[in-house]
Amino acid sequence: MITLNIIGSGNVAQHLISVFQQTENVVLQQIFARKREAVSHLVADAEIVTNFNDLKPANVTIISVTDGAIAEVSNALPYENQLVVHTSGSMGFETLSNKNRKGVFYPLQTFSKAKAVNFKEIPICLETEKEEDFALLERLAQSISDKVFKIGAAQRQSLHVAAVFSCNFVNHLYQLGHEICEEHNVPFDILFPLIDETADKIKTLSPKEAQTGPAIRHDQKTIEKHLAFLDDENKKAIYRLLTQSIQKNNG
Amino acid sequence: MITLNIIGSGNVAQHLISVFQQTENVVLQQIFARKREAVSHLVADAEIVTNFNDLKPANVTIISVTDGAIAEVSNALPYENQLVVHTSGSMGFETLSNKNRKGVFYPLQTFSKAKAVNFKEIPICLETEKEEDFALLERLAQSISDKVFKIGAAQRQSLHVAAVFSCNFVNHLYQLGHEICEEHNVPFDILFPLIDETADKIKTLSPKEAQTGPAIRHDQKTIEKHLAFLDDENKKAIYRLLTQSIQKNNG
Repeated sequence: MITLNIIGSGNVAQHLISVFQQTENVVLQQIFARKREAVSHLVADAEIVTNFNDLKPANVTIISVTDGAIAEVSNALPYENQLVVHTSGSMGFETLSNKNRKGVFYPLQTFSKAKAVNFKEIPICLETEKEEDFALLERLAQSISDKVFKIGAAQRQSLHVAAVFSCNFVNHLYQLGHEICEEHNVPFDILFPLIDETADKIKTLSPKEAQTGPAIRHDQKTIEKHLAFLDDENKKAIYRLLTQSIQKNNG
Repeated sequence: MITLNIIGSGNVAQHLISVFQQTENVVLQQIFARKREAVSHLVADAEIVTNFNDLKPANVTIISVTDGAIAEVSNALPYENQLVVHTSGSMGFETLSNKNRKGVFYPLQTFSKAKAVNFKEIPICLETEKEEDFALLERLAQSISDKVFKIGAAQRQSLHVAAVFSCNFVNHLYQLGHEICEEHNVPFDILFPLIDETADKIKTLSPKEAQTGPAIRHDQKTIEKHLAFLDDENKKAIYRLLTQSIQKNNG
């Protein structure tokens, strides 16, 4: 049995709380949240604490808070020499306090509170300061996911940046598409099969091979028509920059 | 029975040739291609012609060529008063020659030759100049797709622009993510669950609600770390512009 404390109540913390409660061989012992209401609806057996001093040692403590708060929170833990990990893609384990053993538990997924996820499919990228701690963290990760990777700091950073491009920025382009549809009274969901096929295609073709559209065809007439159609300077600037980038990278 | 001619041999034309050959109640009569080899591997019973004058009248002629060639090709057809449609998202039916009845047959999908698609799921956006031609074109479209829409020129244009953002530009962001992974020896396919979830999430949340990442959290430290990590000016410029756009649109 692995005893586990989870610190935090944001999107990632909430999903971790939900999944670890239902996981065999893991005892979700305590949850720290500044506001009890933020997590109380999620919690069955674990104890919720709002004061760091009420936390008791656990085999693993997952700190899932904003990057800027990790150092402070890890310092506030009232115990020593336990394994303490954070869930950030862009911070090293060095940011954690020296009083505990350190590591990283980075689930590579986009978490929204209102949307359930299947953890089995979520890649979890692990790193520990001490080699001998890796097996414990790996056992914890494998209890919820089939896709557990040992990934060092530099590679985790590159995955995080790649994820910003392939997920966060992609979602924003969906948002711009959604706005264009709404402004012209076209239901956005007509685009769903296209959005799905675009995500699916890169499983069998490289994104470079999969590229289609006016930019890669150097179809200047259509590009100009689209720019004239867009009345918003921000959308025009994004259209121009991404068109140039497609043409530069696929020339 | 509807008789059909298809003019063209590009990505869209090839997929249309493949599907209409297997469609009940449609006779794929002739295919025009400048180079016979471009389509001969796809064609079972239909006749391939390389000279416009060898084309015979058909109930419907689909012209699937680059936007700039539509007018010329429609002019070169050796018959009159048939229904002739193009497959462009950004051209009106007016671009077609007056000698035939006009319309648009716009399949809203990204087509690559090397990737099969399921036409049943592909939205097809139809428009005809004459109201009385609509039923014929609708019957043709419904023979291959369950998602047939009557969409006028302005709405089709907005769908096309929205599709450039939500598909062509999205694929390019996958390409940039792919490059970042390759440069740092991380397998790109670790990102597939994230990419799928990003596409899936907007079926239940609006893209605005689904937005996550450093930009929307105004996590300036991570944003600066990512910009320092990127060594390519083009990627930096895209990172900056899309971060700004997320913050402006979700402030």
